[in-house]
Amino acid sequence: MTDSTLIDQLNWRYATKKMDPAKAVPQDKVDTIVEAIRMAPTSSGTQPFELLVVTNPEIRAEIRKAAGDQAQISDGSHLLVFAAWDDYTAERIDAVTDLNVQARGDLPMLKAYYDNLKSNYLPRDAGVNYAHAARQAYIALGIALVAAAEQEVDSTPMEGFDPAKVDEILDLKARGLRSVVLLPLGYRDASADWLLPMEKVRKPLETMVTRIG
Amino acid sequence: MTDSTLIDQLNWRYATKKMDPAKAVPQDKVDTIVEAIRMAPTSSGTQPFELLVVTNPEIRAEIRKAAGDQAQISDGSHLLVFAAWDDYTAERIDAVTDLNVQARGDLPMLKAYYDNLKSNYLPRDAGVNYAHAARQAYIALGIALVAAAEQEVDSTPMEGFDPAKVDEILDLKARGLRSVVLLPLGYRDASADWLLPMEKVRKPLETMVTRIG
Repeated sequence: MTDSTLIDQLNWRYATKKMDPAKAVPQDKVDTIVEAIRMAPTSSGTQPFELLVVTNPEIRAEIRKAAGDQAQISDGSHLLVFAAWDDYTAERIDAVTDLNVQARGDLPMLKAYYDNLKSNYLPRDAGVNYAHAARQAYIALGIALVAAAEQEVDSTPMEGFDPAKVDEILDLKARGLRSVVLLPLGYRDASADWLLPMEKVRKPLETMVTRIG
Repeated sequence: MTDSTLIDQLNWRYATKKMDPAKAVPQDKVDTIVEAIRMAPTSSGTQPFELLVVTNPEIRAEIRKAAGDQAQISDGSHLLVFAAWDDYTAERIDAVTDLNVQARGDLPMLKAYYDNLKSNYLPRDAGVNYAHAARQAYIALGIALVAAAEQEVDSTPMEGFDPAKVDEILDLKARGLRSVVLLPLGYRDASADWLLPMEKVRKPLETMVTRIG
């Protein structure tokens, strides 16, 4: 193995269980984490999700109720909500095409590529398309976890919430979005976090990796 | 925004279209990328996927045929295949529990936690469980893309392949695995890659991010 700052960051981070409500993440660090999410690669460059950055205490209190009362949602200073497109539509893919044309010029291959994408995606069931969009949000989630660690910001990825309720709280349905995963940002309360002193657990390489040479 | 090596890495990387078949990624760099995947966080620490590192040229040629003849699969030196569990089973979750007990001690809360997980996961449809496992592999994919960029290794995430054929080529079904996403590793052929000189395209922040303060 080579020296790797990333590996150090992955060892430093953990799913923080107790955040210190008195410590807020500085805006410039939040901006960097958001920028990493914006730069995350996605299938065909569609970026089929949006990000909600919630600081409002009342709304976070409501989301916390819809998420098994997990305290990090309000003890952290920022709550990131990844919300995927509920379906691929012609309008959405056309907007991606337009963005590509603006940046790269009006190349025939761009139109042909996204026309082909439309003919693949649009006939599919909305559930299939949503599942595909949600996976792309998970690429960005992985990168966000690294970004937070690089900024020495603690974070807790959360799937344990009622997506229908969170969609309602944030009025996502009207925007054609569905909540996928939550990521509170904050700072660990080192004296009160039961998980912090515990050993990190990962499978050994030999049970996870097969080499086919 | 703060200074961020990660943002620089995300700007450096791109979905490489033409790799130089004469240049192999050194083993110590591959090992670091694999270690980043091993350290990727996953839901309840289940790590519900395996990684296949394929260098064998004949097998990569077969996979290439099942993936629309995308040349990076054989022009790169290593092909990573992320293969998710086809279902959650009692045996698999028990193995995770055992690993936790080994590292953290025989704590009653560990058994209770994973017993609860079993009672949630085991009654569910295999397709639902696979979809959940596949999302976890996408967290690791996002982190692998960062790891490759940190090592200045090029990579190309690929969803465009026939999963049933790849499962057959790698005999994954017998192992209870399903191929999710491919990631060839190699080095760009800068003179022959049509994508390299093109502008990177990402949505502007204001169309992607909503702040709720």
